[in-house]
Amino acid sequence: MKILITSGGTTESIDTVRGITNHSTGTLGKYISEKFLAQGHQVSLVTTKSAVKPQEHDNLDIYVISNVDSLIKTIEPLVKSHDVLIHSMAVSDYTPVYMTDLDEVKQRKDIAQLLTKENKETKISSKSDYQVLFLKKTPKVISLVKNWNPNIQLIGFKLLVGVSKDELFAVARESLVNNQARYILANDLSEITPNQHHAYLLDSENAYEAWTKADIAQLIFEKVTHDD
Amino acid sequence: MKILITSGGTTESIDTVRGITNHSTGTLGKYISEKFLAQGHQVSLVTTKSAVKPQEHDNLDIYVISNVDSLIKTIEPLVKSHDVLIHSMAVSDYTPVYMTDLDEVKQRKDIAQLLTKENKETKISSKSDYQVLFLKKTPKVISLVKNWNPNIQLIGFKLLVGVSKDELFAVARESLVNNQARYILANDLSEITPNQHHAYLLDSENAYEAWTKADIAQLIFEKVTHDD
Repeated sequence: MKILITSGGTTESIDTVRGITNHSTGTLGKYISEKFLAQGHQVSLVTTKSAVKPQEHDNLDIYVISNVDSLIKTIEPLVKSHDVLIHSMAVSDYTPVYMTDLDEVKQRKDIAQLLTKENKETKISSKSDYQVLFLKKTPKVISLVKNWNPNIQLIGFKLLVGVSKDELFAVARESLVNNQARYILANDLSEITPNQHHAYLLDSENAYEAWTKADIAQLIFEKVTHDD
Repeated sequence: MKILITSGGTTESIDTVRGITNHSTGTLGKYISEKFLAQGHQVSLVTTKSAVKPQEHDNLDIYVISNVDSLIKTIEPLVKSHDVLIHSMAVSDYTPVYMTDLDEVKQRKDIAQLLTKENKETKISSKSDYQVLFLKKTPKVISLVKNWNPNIQLIGFKLLVGVSKDELFAVARESLVNNQARYILANDLSEITPNQHHAYLLDSENAYEAWTKADIAQLIFEKVTHDD
């Protein structure tokens, strides 16, 4: 099978030296890639510069992206040519529009006008005591996948922080339906430590539990190849 | 000599999953560390999780920090016990105070009141189309160094983007005076490529030019040890 995997976290630039980053080491995506490679599958991994990556392999192609815009440009043709997408990347929800000092914001009667401005300077000045950064929502990449390829088997990821199991399941299953995913891997940051990664692989009826990144990779591998 | 080196770029958290990062691979700090280690000096390297690091060495201690607050707590005692500080780390100018949606900002008569608020949620909601992030200035770490240890030999770094040589020199020499540095390494991001790192090591009278990271490490090594 041709398996497309995303890993790492995107960064949206504020200026040439600063950006907003979604923290993700890429470790889970590396485990999943290695699992499929070891079983003879073809893997395309879309990841970020700083993410950890699998070793070189004849059946592995790596694509390095930075922000949501470059993710979409890279992933659209790949989604169309793969059988499965395992979308473990932490994708930025918002991207910077304009950054300015607090005084400029105070002086505006209509603050929304600032959303039409953009920073011309390459490195925004750091003189004033307070700065204000306006951000706009990025396109939800996972919601575009089935439009690009209705036949792809989509495994989405939902990371929440410090919620109940009920809430985690409810939010994950909402994503399952909205994005026409085959499974959602639901996990809570408060249950991820260097030695543990507690997660549930959910479909509309079942919840398969895993306690380590290796377990998660194994579980996804089994479900994806069993359904083939 | 006991050499303290900083490298990498700090990250200021927005919430548990997102942060504002100053881009820096840590490569130059690695070169400088290796240069001093090879010549028998004791090196303490204060760096970040994602920065590249020198190989283990009997004379090398590595301290991993994340944000400006942890940098200050870690570096203050080290500055007091070292002979030289080579401060190549890209330190965040601003840190998040409060993030909210645009509607809340519009409804406030006195926007500055929002600076007294803080986010209680661990992962800020991504429902609204626009978000506004308020940031406040961080303490300038380089300006504190000589208060902690008046005898330390301080090498500062100044990175600008797309400016003239005159402007670069003027800004760097302002930092030299304000921070009582022995030298400032002045460089322009537009002259840094994978194979080139154009920079000037400046004191009040002289400018020593370098074209690669290895050259910069050599130049700093010579000046620091010659002045000993």
